[in-house]
Amino acid sequence: MSGLRPPKGTRDFLPDDMVLRRGVLELLRWSFQLYGFEEWDGPAFEYLEALEKKSGEGIKDEIYVFEDKSGRELGLRFELTSSLARIVANNPQLKKPLRVYNIGKVWRYEKPQAGRYREFYQADVDVFGSDSRLAEAELISLAGTALDLLGFSGYEIRLNSRKILSSQMRLAGVPEKKRQDAFQALDKLEKIGKEGVEEEFENRGIKSKVFDKLYELLSLDGSNEDKLNDMKEVLDEEGKEGVRELEEIISILEDSEIDVPVSVSPTLVRGLAYYTGPVFEASSSQSDIGSFAGGGRYDNLVSDFGGRDTPAVGLSFGVERLIDLIKERDGVTLERGGVCIVYYDEDLLPDALGAAKRLRQEGISAFLDLNKRSLGKQLEYADVVGAAYSFLIFPDGETKLKDMESEEEAEMSLEDVISEIQG
Amino acid sequence: MSGLRPPKGTRDFLPDDMVLRRGVLELLRWSFQLYGFEEWDGPAFEYLEALEKKSGEGIKDEIYVFEDKSGRELGLRFELTSSLARIVANNPQLKKPLRVYNIGKVWRYEKPQAGRYREFYQADVDVFGSDSRLAEAELISLAGTALDLLGFSGYEIRLNSRKILSSQMRLAGVPEKKRQDAFQALDKLEKIGKEGVEEEFENRGIKSKVFDKLYELLSLDGSNEDKLNDMKEVLDEEGKEGVRELEEIISILEDSEIDVPVSVSPTLVRGLAYYTGPVFEASSSQSDIGSFAGGGRYDNLVSDFGGRDTPAVGLSFGVERLIDLIKERDGVTLERGGVCIVYYDEDLLPDALGAAKRLRQEGISAFLDLNKRSLGKQLEYADVVGAAYSFLIFPDGETKLKDMESEEEAEMSLEDVISEIQG
Repeated sequence: MSGLRPPKGTRDFLPDDMVLRRGVLELLRWSFQLYGFEEWDGPAFEYLEALEKKSGEGIKDEIYVFEDKSGRELGLRFELTSSLARIVANNPQLKKPLRVYNIGKVWRYEKPQAGRYREFYQADVDVFGSDSRLAEAELISLAGTALDLLGFSGYEIRLNSRKILSSQMRLAGVPEKKRQDAFQALDKLEKIGKEGVEEEFENRGIKSKVFDKLYELLSLDGSNEDKLNDMKEVLDEEGKEGVRELEEIISILEDSEIDVPVSVSPTLVRGLAYYTGPVFEASSSQSDIGSFAGGGRYDNLVSDFGGRDTPAVGLSFGVERLIDLIKERDGVTLERGGVCIVYYDEDLLPDALGAAKRLRQEGISAFLDLNKRSLGKQLEYADVVGAAYSFLIFPDGETKLKDMESEEEAEMSLEDVISEIQG
Repeated sequence: MSGLRPPKGTRDFLPDDMVLRRGVLELLRWSFQLYGFEEWDGPAFEYLEALEKKSGEGIKDEIYVFEDKSGRELGLRFELTSSLARIVANNPQLKKPLRVYNIGKVWRYEKPQAGRYREFYQADVDVFGSDSRLAEAELISLAGTALDLLGFSGYEIRLNSRKILSSQMRLAGVPEKKRQDAFQALDKLEKIGKEGVEEEFENRGIKSKVFDKLYELLSLDGSNEDKLNDMKEVLDEEGKEGVRELEEIISILEDSEIDVPVSVSPTLVRGLAYYTGPVFEASSSQSDIGSFAGGGRYDNLVSDFGGRDTPAVGLSFGVERLIDLIKERDGVTLERGGVCIVYYDEDLLPDALGAAKRLRQEGISAFLDLNKRSLGKQLEYADVVGAAYSFLIFPDGETKLKDMESEEEAEMSLEDVISEIQG
């Protein structure tokens, strides 16, 4: 019965799904808080013109659009940064550098496919009002901390700069007005390969000898230092500035012994038009599972919204991908928690509710089967809903604690149960 | 510049606003977890027909509606229960009684007015698959716990039953097909007074002597016991069943010494059409600030969605009202937190970042001014962004801790700072 399914491309989450989701979302929040970021929130929809400001009029076909009763067009937000840039532009009183985060749902009208949803979470951290490379270094360090906390090892942070890419494109002869096209084609390199990108360049009217030259400029080997030195030898002033900025980020991380593996990646683009400086992406160094998180500097967005000139750097986590990867890695495990109060018969209901009340006072999650069933049925219920313990109450005042995992039982008073659990 | 404002009726939340919001949301979540409820989540929009199933076709005018590319109508959810009932109907494998919660945004196309927003949070707890009054008692107890945790005193839980109301309407002669109209008019009693309700009855074609008779049946005084006894004397079988159910809820709470003040309220309706049994509402017993939370039994909704017959009870918290009331009560206070690392000059940046890293390893929130400014400016920044402490690093290896509240300073090593903060 199709009326019972969620709208195409969206998902329902049952309690068993939510345990891992909630865990990932709260670990990300915890990472952001550890780095002293503060929370902001904005509406799920924006005036369409605000969304178009950042992404052009074409965005209308890729998002959910509707009208308010005055006929003004609204769109569900498709990422968090547009709203945030608008808010920062609208609130010049906010003290800079502003370090903020938001974790929220966004919506895209995409063809549903594996791992792509029309409704999904994003988790973003952004710094406004700092033109220092310290801001990038802090976000890269934060990406490392979050991935460590989520149990990912073997990741690396790929690093590049829009200034370097622009310089390379200029040298290769990519026309200024085709540069964004070229960025977008190049961004697909890992997906569609060299030939694929060359074809995209051709389709966008960029000559193949221009592509060859660009590809040569991007083909750099060796250590981070080697690559950056090679760049400095050929690039123009803007490119050299990009190199110096990456050197500064790397040296900040090294000097302060921040243990995040950073790799200069000449082909890293990050597709979005609004980046202006360093860009970075966290991905697995071992396998081809795409990126965990990515971001970069976008110094013009707040002023594009009509606000004061405000340099900015952001980092966005691919929440859904992180959840999918952890599910693959760990499988779905039942996380047991809480105490199910099991009572011998209905006469003991007041005692059972009293025990629940006492446990809750101590901050211990407690619940009862609400159907007044037999002891055996109650224990079965405790097991399937994932209680960590059952506390059994018998008529003669006898009480027992049952560990639902080990199935061990022991006579124990309620107060001893509290001590046992609070350990 | 109107392009910088959020869409009409929606709000932007700056970090200072989010502290209290996050606190309230997390306290509610904590209460739900204490009672062993598990989280679910669903899409922000549903097929319009799913939203209409519960609320009739008229709902279309009160919500945000749009089309997907195949021309199918979607609507932003205006509350959480429709989605949940659909999900429960679609997942008969979920073990009953199912005790679940969700905290999420909902949207209504309302005339913006004080305290009414077009985007707001709801926090709902629901029990599916229990026909026992224990379910109601647990939700009422939970409402009390949550309000206690949020620091509200002087609330009471008003209690009534749709069965009692139906019986009273039958006795008064309200025609069966006008009953929902009458419920909705009566629901406004507190807002528009007796005369107002009488007028609404007239407008809906219910005779004034019917209203007089109904009003007489509803005018009951005395203790809970008095009111329930008076009802039993006049009501028919359905009404008597309603009375017995309320008696059972009250005695469960009393017998287990759950300390929640409950008051039988013959005029409590709760407007929604889908309630079938006991209804309840938490409100201030002292002042007229509306309700904090409310809910009731809705045994037919899951089967209306095409699922198996599944009794259900729900409780919904008025999150925005709770936040507004706490803001009024406590004012807006700056909550200080975290350590700002302050460094004498740029040479000490590696030490500063090292100190931040060390504090974060210990789970202590730490951050730096990212603009490499003077010591004085950094301390000023630490103050305005609300750091609890500053940790100052000087060239000669000297380090100090400054309490930003008391402004006291003391020489202290980083490890001693950690011990001091972890207390």
